[in-house]
Amino acid sequence: MALDVAAAMRLAAEASENARGSSTPNPPVGAVILNAVGDVVGVGHTSPAGGPHAEVNALRAAGEFARGGTAVVTLEPCNHTGRTGPCTRALIEAGVASVVFALADPNPVASGGAETLTAAGVHVTDGLDADAVAAGPLRAWLHRQRSGRPHVTWKYASSLDGRIAAADGTSRWITGPEARAHVHSERAKVDAVIVGTGTVLADDPWLTARLPDGSLAPRQPVRVVVGEREIPPAARILDGSAETRLVRSHDPHAVLAALSDLGDVVLEGGPTVVGAFLSADLVDRVTAYIAPVILGSGPAVSAEAGVGTIADALRFRRESVRTFGPDTLISLTPDR
Amino acid sequence: MALDVAAAMRLAAEASENARGSSTPNPPVGAVILNAVGDVVGVGHTSPAGGPHAEVNALRAAGEFARGGTAVVTLEPCNHTGRTGPCTRALIEAGVASVVFALADPNPVASGGAETLTAAGVHVTDGLDADAVAAGPLRAWLHRQRSGRPHVTWKYASSLDGRIAAADGTSRWITGPEARAHVHSERAKVDAVIVGTGTVLADDPWLTARLPDGSLAPRQPVRVVVGEREIPPAARILDGSAETRLVRSHDPHAVLAALSDLGDVVLEGGPTVVGAFLSADLVDRVTAYIAPVILGSGPAVSAEAGVGTIADALRFRRESVRTFGPDTLISLTPDR
Repeated sequence: MALDVAAAMRLAAEASENARGSSTPNPPVGAVILNAVGDVVGVGHTSPAGGPHAEVNALRAAGEFARGGTAVVTLEPCNHTGRTGPCTRALIEAGVASVVFALADPNPVASGGAETLTAAGVHVTDGLDADAVAAGPLRAWLHRQRSGRPHVTWKYASSLDGRIAAADGTSRWITGPEARAHVHSERAKVDAVIVGTGTVLADDPWLTARLPDGSLAPRQPVRVVVGEREIPPAARILDGSAETRLVRSHDPHAVLAALSDLGDVVLEGGPTVVGAFLSADLVDRVTAYIAPVILGSGPAVSAEAGVGTIADALRFRRESVRTFGPDTLISLTPDR
Repeated sequence: MALDVAAAMRLAAEASENARGSSTPNPPVGAVILNAVGDVVGVGHTSPAGGPHAEVNALRAAGEFARGGTAVVTLEPCNHTGRTGPCTRALIEAGVASVVFALADPNPVASGGAETLTAAGVHVTDGLDADAVAAGPLRAWLHRQRSGRPHVTWKYASSLDGRIAAADGTSRWITGPEARAHVHSERAKVDAVIVGTGTVLADDPWLTARLPDGSLAPRQPVRVVVGEREIPPAARILDGSAETRLVRSHDPHAVLAALSDLGDVVLEGGPTVVGAFLSADLVDRVTAYIAPVILGSGPAVSAEAGVGTIADALRFRRESVRTFGPDTLISLTPDR
């Protein structure tokens, strides 16, 4: 299959989705090798930490077909020797004629790849499809490089009228099985899931990532409980199926400081915790699974979030709208 | 342009959108005439009451090209002489060989068209694309024929968290200009817009249908105010730009009885009125314009609606999801 480099970059970005979560703390990168006439001869993504980077995986698949070809990579090839050798050396040794990447590596330790490649006579092009790639699987890693804190996705499932439970607190189920399956597949790709003690006391959730057959996914996010109320020792969130951290604070800054080793976290808390994160401007994306259901009463998705009048509304941009069975997923990003 | 009858039916349904509102009390029907080789030779929709029906308008456009052709109509051609002659006679006189319609006429006075056409030697096919046509422009008229009451669309604009105003009551604007323009174009096609006295006292709306330049649309819905509170004589809703009816009751059944001469009404009220309509199961469609905005406090789209626990949630089916600028329109129909 012959592809132009733009299509190869989209394929590389898709391949990198496979590395989301498992590559932490390395970035989830995707790479495609085209031979000299533009056929795809290798596709790769970042292996779990300590394993090969995306370029190396793609080069291994390509073998000798890489010689004289083009490597298309979502992130600038790394230039340093960590647990693996530099990707620049692997690309030069494989004999690729050109390297095209979307985003420069913002990490000063790893950057400089473009210069090294150019010095070795490789033709280098950067910036291809940069905006789309930055909004894709690399998003949380880039955010952490830039801001020094994890990327926070506020995820919720609600009725059309913005309620996460009925008046008596019951909430199983507002959304349908397709949306719930998507929530679980996303959980398996993130580093942590955050709830407040209120959610633990009200719903006693496991907060694990489960496969469609109900079994535990191979990779589990860290379960994070925030707040100062005691939770019972028998709470499901304290079972052994995944790591759990208790952060005895309601301050979102303190919560994120306690998760500074993580890159991609999901806020699944109730209205109190959510209101605190929103008020602190610490929500970097909203993913709202909206069910075709009206409740008319019951807890709202967010408590008071510092908005007194319409001019102070928290405004976002729509990233996408998708449907899952009967439900609609609206994804937003802050209009900062 | 040659079309098969299925494509002609979709074109007829699109043409009937032009008759929404203006055809009342007649149904908004669309008709397409294909000549003997399938070329479109006429398209028509129902004229305002007293004017020609869709078939006659389409036949006029087709002239002699209709002879030996096919008439494709969203509703069974009428068989009775009201202010206009029966469409069946017009079709027979025009010499069409075949008539294809989507829905039988449920009105006993007008029905019998299929039999009359068949008796005159015209080949008649019914039921083509019936479900899609029934969900289109004919929907409110069919609903009234079946139920004896107007079709009620609950329309609202809210933040993602289901609030129609900020804590201080301000709400201009939650949604963007694209969504607001769509609301006005829909208002111009319906028979009435309903609000409660609370909305009049809080927002003092005109409730008129306006064109993009701000001027009044040629056709205005009846403005209906429900509830027992007094509204000030200077309220904008009492200006002369459209008819206004005051219904001094909070009972949705009483409200709809006072609108029994109308077919297609839109509920734009605040939480109290909406909660009453929802509790009475008198909402036939929901159109929710959802802005990428979080408010965290402020009035909800609906007050308590008789749902105490999740098993009693008011459940709907998604009809469509559309985007208008930054906003998302989710349309639902009851899962009755």
